[in-house]
Amino acid sequence: MKIGDNVNIIEIINKKRKKEELTKEEIMYAVNGYVEGSIKDYQMSALLMAICLNDMTEEEVFALTDVMLHSGEVLDLSKIKGIKVDKHSTGGVGDKATIILGPLLASLGVNIAKMSGRGLGHTGGTIDKLESIPGFSTSMSLEEFTNQVNNIHFALVGQMGNLVPADKKIYALRDVTGTVESIPLIATSIMSKKLASGADKIVIDVKVGSGALVKNLEEANKLANLMVKIGKNAGKEIICVLTNMDEPLGTHIGNALEVEECINFLKGSYEKDVYELVMKLGSCMASLGLFITEEEAKKRLEENITNGKAYSKFDEFVKAQGGNLEKLERAPKEFSIKSTKSGYINHIDTLKLGEIVREIGAGRYEKEDKIDYGVGIILSKKVGDFILQDEELLKIYLHEKDMELGKILNCFDIGVHYIEPEPLIYEVIK
Amino acid sequence: MKIGDNVNIIEIINKKRKKEELTKEEIMYAVNGYVEGSIKDYQMSALLMAICLNDMTEEEVFALTDVMLHSGEVLDLSKIKGIKVDKHSTGGVGDKATIILGPLLASLGVNIAKMSGRGLGHTGGTIDKLESIPGFSTSMSLEEFTNQVNNIHFALVGQMGNLVPADKKIYALRDVTGTVESIPLIATSIMSKKLASGADKIVIDVKVGSGALVKNLEEANKLANLMVKIGKNAGKEIICVLTNMDEPLGTHIGNALEVEECINFLKGSYEKDVYELVMKLGSCMASLGLFITEEEAKKRLEENITNGKAYSKFDEFVKAQGGNLEKLERAPKEFSIKSTKSGYINHIDTLKLGEIVREIGAGRYEKEDKIDYGVGIILSKKVGDFILQDEELLKIYLHEKDMELGKILNCFDIGVHYIEPEPLIYEVIK
Repeated sequence: MKIGDNVNIIEIINKKRKKEELTKEEIMYAVNGYVEGSIKDYQMSALLMAICLNDMTEEEVFALTDVMLHSGEVLDLSKIKGIKVDKHSTGGVGDKATIILGPLLASLGVNIAKMSGRGLGHTGGTIDKLESIPGFSTSMSLEEFTNQVNNIHFALVGQMGNLVPADKKIYALRDVTGTVESIPLIATSIMSKKLASGADKIVIDVKVGSGALVKNLEEANKLANLMVKIGKNAGKEIICVLTNMDEPLGTHIGNALEVEECINFLKGSYEKDVYELVMKLGSCMASLGLFITEEEAKKRLEENITNGKAYSKFDEFVKAQGGNLEKLERAPKEFSIKSTKSGYINHIDTLKLGEIVREIGAGRYEKEDKIDYGVGIILSKKVGDFILQDEELLKIYLHEKDMELGKILNCFDIGVHYIEPEPLIYEVIK
Repeated sequence: MKIGDNVNIIEIINKKRKKEELTKEEIMYAVNGYVEGSIKDYQMSALLMAICLNDMTEEEVFALTDVMLHSGEVLDLSKIKGIKVDKHSTGGVGDKATIILGPLLASLGVNIAKMSGRGLGHTGGTIDKLESIPGFSTSMSLEEFTNQVNNIHFALVGQMGNLVPADKKIYALRDVTGTVESIPLIATSIMSKKLASGADKIVIDVKVGSGALVKNLEEANKLANLMVKIGKNAGKEIICVLTNMDEPLGTHIGNALEVEECINFLKGSYEKDVYELVMKLGSCMASLGLFITEEEAKKRLEENITNGKAYSKFDEFVKAQGGNLEKLERAPKEFSIKSTKSGYINHIDTLKLGEIVREIGAGRYEKEDKIDYGVGIILSKKVGDFILQDEELLKIYLHEKDMELGKILNCFDIGVHYIEPEPLIYEVIK
């Protein structure tokens, strides 16, 4: 028979187009066929668009997560003694919470065995930020990784093993086919990776806002509830924290610059928003890891910042992975950008600002691009602040002044009336 | 800037995914980019799926038709004197109406300048059926084509010029991505080709049924109304005839076998269903071409069959294109398939029967496949007929008995109760 090998995938696409429920076998056929190449990009993208528009049932979501999870290796962290807590963020400009939360939680004895990515963001991923510390290495064997967690409760590693290859291939396709914004696809992508990286309990920071994967609270709620259900279905406890990303987190944006802000935080000097976020995520993580209330957890986190244990843990962690904090890079040219009028900062176009930071070299456009660790921005003002004409809005760090800096001002809405900023933490879903 | 060349197509896909109306410029960008290769298969298939599920507005449909129409050459038939009428069928097993209608209408003086395709059907397309006549050629220059129509009112040509390359590429993609069943995509595909082939007025036979492109009357109505509107928008008069395809048309299925049935018809010997269809389509075509009523048109068609003018025109047409009717092929082995029980033929699984005819060599699986002109089936009974046990149901013509013929019986539902067959003609939309 020459009917064509693809008859099954076409039937599967047609079924989803007609809003019929796919079986686990059909989902497995589609995903595994795509990973091995018998199902083509153009077929998968049609299926993904049908999923975007016709949604998935919970059963389909559980099946898809499981199939993706088992498309590659699953990390075996059983040699780590005790409960392993993971933390994930759906991504935001200036989001350096992981670099603070890792040592902070570890200083309380919570095991943080963290795998992280590089990504194609406005700045690098957590891995890139840490690699801006001279000597810092994020590649280690599974044995080294588990040993470090057993010894100091925190290790952070880059790519380890071939985890969830299906997600890598499907995500790259979604990125170029307008199929990113789909709650079930976002949920399965995040959860298959989290489940593959072996933690027992996971806190997820779901960013909400115009520049985020999910644009509004209703969608964020759906996504969070779905991820909690996927976790339950896989026997893992998940807490989702819905947070606002209407401005960059903290003041520092860039790679080495963000590490600087993390050091300041762990030494007790912090911006209000970073503090609020770290305390909320951290107390969720500590409550999961130590079986204590969130109030008790928060108290202990505050203590360990004040008594210096958090910073000592960070120092221990950096040394364990070969880093030298004394030589943090900062680009040599500093330019001060001043406001052209007086008023309240009502809004920061976070995405546009992120785009500028990427443009000056802090982030990648393509996987092969090299990151310039020392460049970036330090905000002098945040949303809600009052600024005078000619007062400094931010500092930008560059090697050469090779761009028109005036356009940065377009990222800021400055008005005569004070507008109450949105809350940073919207809701906790567990 | 390295933002990526594809930012526009992703925005277009996202727009359609959110059910926003695309502008003509956006549609042009997508279609032309796809034809020239800067927009990828996987992006077009995502866009097509979004169109399948979110529909298109009339303005979008007009724009898409126009963009596809102008993606290649548009045939200039202005050298043909008088009105040119075209006929199209959305395709059915045993559909040989064009081969009858061409000479029949031409015998009344209606100009039929017909371009036809080969296609990947259960049998060949009209071109293949006619090429089963030894010597018959379907390739000619535009000049030869227009001259023949001016001389004898009918010419039938295969591929001529590079008409609607966008449709070829998009259709091939739809075929393997589960995006065939979309009213706006079907309408624009048919109409862009019809408009490019230069006729003034067009009659379209829209087949309805489980095996057809449109499954039910509601969808067929939508499709027909949309095509009539597209025609009006382009200044062309369109009539759509909605017809039933619950059984093969007539008795003969195969290439040379269908030509035989056409000859029989034009000589005055015909099956009721073929007659009904030809008279309905033919009187629509004649009324458009000659500005007469359908009743008057029908009378003239009947006359020209009776007085032999229709057959003479066929003979003239075949000779003009080099064919020799004396040597029609028929495969040497004839097998008679007999019913295993008595009863009324309540249903014929037309698609399954078509698949068998393709399997014995009458159709293609892939573009390069060679067609076996002489093989096929002649039905001895049609839906509604009574058959006795051991009475002949059909004859099958083969070179060798190389398949299990018993499975043909599975295509026929034979029951003790008579079920009134569906009407052949449902509705005329203009």
